[in-house]
Amino acid sequence: MISDSTKNVIYIVGLGPGDTRFLTEEARRVLEASDVIVGYNVYVDLIRDSFPDKEYQSTGMRQELERCRLCYKLSGEGKVVSLVCSGDAGIYGMASPMYEMSKDYPDTELVVIPGVTAALSGAAVLGAPLNHDFCVISLSDLMTPWETIERRLRAAVLGDFAIAIYNPSSRKRADYLMKACDILLAEGASEDRACGYVENIGRKGEKTVTCTLKELRVSSVNMFTTVFIGNSKSYIDNGKLITRRGYNE
Amino acid sequence: MISDSTKNVIYIVGLGPGDTRFLTEEARRVLEASDVIVGYNVYVDLIRDSFPDKEYQSTGMRQELERCRLCYKLSGEGKVVSLVCSGDAGIYGMASPMYEMSKDYPDTELVVIPGVTAALSGAAVLGAPLNHDFCVISLSDLMTPWETIERRLRAAVLGDFAIAIYNPSSRKRADYLMKACDILLAEGASEDRACGYVENIGRKGEKTVTCTLKELRVSSVNMFTTVFIGNSKSYIDNGKLITRRGYNE
Repeated sequence: MISDSTKNVIYIVGLGPGDTRFLTEEARRVLEASDVIVGYNVYVDLIRDSFPDKEYQSTGMRQELERCRLCYKLSGEGKVVSLVCSGDAGIYGMASPMYEMSKDYPDTELVVIPGVTAALSGAAVLGAPLNHDFCVISLSDLMTPWETIERRLRAAVLGDFAIAIYNPSSRKRADYLMKACDILLAEGASEDRACGYVENIGRKGEKTVTCTLKELRVSSVNMFTTVFIGNSKSYIDNGKLITRRGYNE
Repeated sequence: MISDSTKNVIYIVGLGPGDTRFLTEEARRVLEASDVIVGYNVYVDLIRDSFPDKEYQSTGMRQELERCRLCYKLSGEGKVVSLVCSGDAGIYGMASPMYEMSKDYPDTELVVIPGVTAALSGAAVLGAPLNHDFCVISLSDLMTPWETIERRLRAAVLGDFAIAIYNPSSRKRADYLMKACDILLAEGASEDRACGYVENIGRKGEKTVTCTLKELRVSSVNMFTTVFIGNSKSYIDNGKLITRRGYNE
């Protein structure tokens, strides 16, 4: 909510999957109350037209810490700052790096405004793939050792969780989804496990696919894709991926 | 989005944590376009004042399948129906029971509108507890055998996931959070693992607590509490629970 703190305030705002129709009303209110909106170029461009009278400051990919410092600097100048993230600000977002840096800025208060992360928006398009216990795993090994990612994939099968996979691929990691599927298969997930993926959720060119784990293994996905792997009881019906809640069992 | 289907349409709408300020703009648009809003009493009451000119139909707790059938019945009468859920419609929500029932209603299209689930809204209040790979586990054994829940808790430790726990307690399950903590401890989670919980997220009486796993074990939580358990690297600073993303490591 809009803070009544006497400190400087920085809002860390989740924008949802892209289109402003997935903004929460709280996020809109906070953005309207801000002097400056800071973010990664691509996300800033998604909202620029909706909030035309704001100062915008954007930085490129992998400049996360610079972006955080910029927010604290602008806030120190007395400006109300919103740092925007796609999806949710606390799911692979900027909330934790901002908090980690906060000890250097004791006069600044951080307020996180949640948003609809891709696990939720992608699930909504695919049907109900996460409608029971689930886990969320990023395949990006930029800041996480691959061994940790592998350990989590194995644990996800052991726990029979439904799984949402973020960052399934990039130019440098073109075969990571295949590697991940091989780990799931080796751990005992069946080749016909029900899966699916969504590309460009809520944006132009949205594309959804349902398939088996065997088919997923050789699918062509990109960095704008979110992948869903059902639990052992999930199924595909009429193009939708469904994980049972249990009412009908 | 608002469907242009020639079929009957039922929207399954996530309301977010309670206050309508966490509604997405899409959810508001769909509710405004609906003739009837159906849901569990408590959730329907949260939005009744914001959409005063609608027909409301509510059913009690554990009447999930009746609620689904009611939606299909109303839709068959030519009404535009929204079935509302707290949080997100696809996270322990009504999306999957509606899809499971859909084979009996081939002329009806389902559209899921995602919302901010308690894992996200609670995390925002607590700091950044889910800012790396995480899992979401419900402790309710109404429709899930306790052995499955236990297996998932163990797997969550094996994978070193941050964990969001839904339904940590109820009158009949007063000691379930303690049982869950004991499983995590037995599996190797340390007694001083950083944890926290939020009660009444986004509603009157919101309360946040950060604590260790040992303290969480004997905490008094209720059915309106969402519990967060950090991964092995999470920490508490200045009353906030932070799971590192890795930029500063």
